[in-house]
Amino acid sequence: MPQISQKGLDMPASPIRKLVPYAEKAFAAGKRVFHLNIGQPDIATPDSALEAIKIFDGHVLEYSHSAGFESYRRKLADAYLKNDIHVTHEDIIITTGGSEALIFGFLATCNPGDEIIIPEPFYANYNAFAVTAGLKVVPVTATIDNGFALPPIEEIEKKITDKTKAIVICNPGNPTGYLYKKEELEKLSKIVKKHDLFLFADEVYREFCYDGAVPFSVMNLEGLEQNVIMIDSVSKRYSMCGARIGALVSKNKDVVSAVLKFGQARLSPPTIDQIAAEAALNTPQSYFDDVVNEYVERRNTLVEGLNSIPGVFCPKPSGAFYCVAKFPVDSAEKFCQWLLEEFDYEGDTVMMAPCNGFYSTPGAGEQEARLAYVLEKSSLERSLECLREALTQYPGRTN
Amino acid sequence: MPQISQKGLDMPASPIRKLVPYAEKAFAAGKRVFHLNIGQPDIATPDSALEAIKIFDGHVLEYSHSAGFESYRRKLADAYLKNDIHVTHEDIIITTGGSEALIFGFLATCNPGDEIIIPEPFYANYNAFAVTAGLKVVPVTATIDNGFALPPIEEIEKKITDKTKAIVICNPGNPTGYLYKKEELEKLSKIVKKHDLFLFADEVYREFCYDGAVPFSVMNLEGLEQNVIMIDSVSKRYSMCGARIGALVSKNKDVVSAVLKFGQARLSPPTIDQIAAEAALNTPQSYFDDVVNEYVERRNTLVEGLNSIPGVFCPKPSGAFYCVAKFPVDSAEKFCQWLLEEFDYEGDTVMMAPCNGFYSTPGAGEQEARLAYVLEKSSLERSLECLREALTQYPGRTN
Repeated sequence: MPQISQKGLDMPASPIRKLVPYAEKAFAAGKRVFHLNIGQPDIATPDSALEAIKIFDGHVLEYSHSAGFESYRRKLADAYLKNDIHVTHEDIIITTGGSEALIFGFLATCNPGDEIIIPEPFYANYNAFAVTAGLKVVPVTATIDNGFALPPIEEIEKKITDKTKAIVICNPGNPTGYLYKKEELEKLSKIVKKHDLFLFADEVYREFCYDGAVPFSVMNLEGLEQNVIMIDSVSKRYSMCGARIGALVSKNKDVVSAVLKFGQARLSPPTIDQIAAEAALNTPQSYFDDVVNEYVERRNTLVEGLNSIPGVFCPKPSGAFYCVAKFPVDSAEKFCQWLLEEFDYEGDTVMMAPCNGFYSTPGAGEQEARLAYVLEKSSLERSLECLREALTQYPGRTN
Repeated sequence: MPQISQKGLDMPASPIRKLVPYAEKAFAAGKRVFHLNIGQPDIATPDSALEAIKIFDGHVLEYSHSAGFESYRRKLADAYLKNDIHVTHEDIIITTGGSEALIFGFLATCNPGDEIIIPEPFYANYNAFAVTAGLKVVPVTATIDNGFALPPIEEIEKKITDKTKAIVICNPGNPTGYLYKKEELEKLSKIVKKHDLFLFADEVYREFCYDGAVPFSVMNLEGLEQNVIMIDSVSKRYSMCGARIGALVSKNKDVVSAVLKFGQARLSPPTIDQIAAEAALNTPQSYFDDVVNEYVERRNTLVEGLNSIPGVFCPKPSGAFYCVAKFPVDSAEKFCQWLLEEFDYEGDTVMMAPCNGFYSTPGAGEQEARLAYVLEKSSLERSLECLREALTQYPGRTN
């Protein structure tokens, strides 16, 4: 029997899915499980997008252009102006989700064996994309104590070797919700420029910034036009994760044309979904205002609630819809599993994502878990009651 | 400025797209161009699929399961029974097009530097998927003289080295239209088994078999259950190329679970498109009967017409909707370019895909071009008139 490849063996299982069998058992046992573990928002997809799907009247569901419909790319370039991002449709390749944008981006810029530096904790699938492209992830650890700000620039620079080809950030961050300040990004840009690296920025949560915070895109880092590759997606912005429409944006023509060749090989991103994504660009600002207000209220409920539980610490994030909390437990993974397997509070329990899967350094973030505030306020309040009660019972409690 | 990767440099441009700028110039010059160069059928997508898109009434366009909707996988497994293919939904991973199925399949089974043997001419994007996974394509040349039958098994076995990990076939074939006989596949299976290789079979054209020919799936090769990986897609079957829904099917659990990990990293195939693909399984047999009748008539028109032009030879294929013809010219690529740049017949001309891009061996197939009979009969007849006239004028004519 022929054996699978090393990459097949090395591909990490998603840390979010690790606990799924326990959640299924909890569900089978009749428990109500509050799913704070995944980033599937409950927010409605904008009507414009859903309507565009319904009124599709073609007779043949044809391929689109490999770079995505030109009409969509032109409108997307226009839409970026709202964020003070100045690009043309020729700087944009539409991809099948932000995932494909990252995979193509890594393949087109990095050679097998190259290193990419990523502040941790980071979106766990970056590991998988690195395995796909044969790259080594070099983490630089951020700390919960300052809300997961960018690690000191000297710490990052220390990790740069001859093999380093890129730095990867997510801003606002998944899982941290941290929004990098312009000054942090400018510091980062200096070492990117100095060492002639690529800078990948996953900015898919850009619309979710709170308390008046304004996101600063890497596309606006001066003098870094040839280094910067911005990753985008409609998944979270319009709560249309199932559309699988993303984008890779760069002013570097060599990168864009190499990525297009990968795009041509897979023919095209999905057609109907692009039509929906193009229509979604007509979503009124009021939709986002409502969504942001909703998330702010949820975040406040969740973060304040967590910090009111003795021994729990949760920095207040300025973006995305995640937060990372530190729990007074021996192991967040064991705690999360115990919540599903052994615990319930009047029939209710909570599912969280243990953070060890978001760190590349063994042992880091052992007491931390990610919570996505993608449920309505009343569910979050009930989840907090469960967690408060659980921590009085959990046998591995540490303080 | 940081440099792109070797893979970015190595990714082949699509041979089908090479001539696009000349086609655009021809169009701009007011010529009518008959596009026989691409595999985008003009056949209508089944109503059941289009209707399923229109009646989608979800409020949130959510992710699906990473392996694809279970309901779809179950129905797909049932549908395969019609082709005497016996699998369960657990043997199936739904992918974003057949392209992703091949990429994931290569990544999950082959290590960088491994060799894959492919009878040529073959679908040019296999080269791109090989570059993506860092593999070396080893071609075995089939000949137009016997209609591109499987090359002698000894020729294939001679190419097997310590580095060989898989053999890849497309059946019925793109670009050849050749349908492998059961006996050919059984010969192939012996060396696959003997050398403990994987056998990838791209069977996306299975529904397009003519003159009573019945396709034999690699899934039915006895004793090869752990070696065989079948690639499928809805693109051609239901003329819904833009849906980007494919599948990887294998009885090898290690392969399926490794491919699922790649699938989890990219989250899910598109949701609406899967709903449409699932609905397309309800397409009545009469749809396929009509389509097959239409293609048979087109094929007969085209192939007979080509063979009636002095100096042209075109074997009659039993499947898919392509044929490869040999022209009495110095170079099919030059001829195809000349057709667009220099020639017209009362304002009309033809675009074909030169076959050199479908061969991996330099210089092979120099006089051959692929024609897709995806246009209606009258357009094919007019295309034949153009080609007949063109060959009387082309300066590089050889006999």
